[in-house]
Amino acid sequence: MMVLITYDVNTTSADGQRRLRQVAKTCENYGQRVQNSVFECLLDPQQLKELHIKLKRMIEPETDSLRFYRLGANWKGKVEHVGAKQGYDPEGFLMI
Amino acid sequence: MMVLITYDVNTTSADGQRRLRQVAKTCENYGQRVQNSVFECLLDPQQLKELHIKLKRMIEPETDSLRFYRLGANWKGKVEHVGAKQGYDPEGFLMI
Repeated sequence: MMVLITYDVNTTSADGQRRLRQVAKTCENYGQRVQNSVFECLLDPQQLKELHIKLKRMIEPETDSLRFYRLGANWKGKVEHVGAKQGYDPEGFLMI
Repeated sequence: MMVLITYDVNTTSADGQRRLRQVAKTCENYGQRVQNSVFECLLDPQQLKELHIKLKRMIEPETDSLRFYRLGANWKGKVEHVGAKQGYDPEGFLMI
């Protein structure tokens, strides 16, 4: 299923900057960055659980946040991109 | 309908910082900020059209981007928030 993950990490400290890099790097392993703090990840339920646990452990819950949006099966028709870094097709790799 | 709006604005210039403020301020008039560059907006089709036009005019398409996700009717069950700035209920104002 397509899951949109957005995050806010407080980067006023060196530790925050480290957390931000960690969160971004982890999301990169599961999906596609579409904006600075926005990833689209095509995940099965096990992967979603795994990623959720990892990210939750990384953030500082007092200052940082994560949001997970399950976009459903027909997500393609629900997304519109305007401007730089034009959208991509995360399922494209299936269409050889 | 619930529309999630995410944006990236290049703030390396004073003009970029101005654009970022403009985009955020405009989104604030249509919905609820849930993260720094993420808004959830409960919009009718006319409002969505209006907001889309306004935001598109504000950004610099070479460096900035907007993404619009139509979350559909059952959006509440599809969103999960973890960490700071706990989610809110944008339809809560209807429940007096």
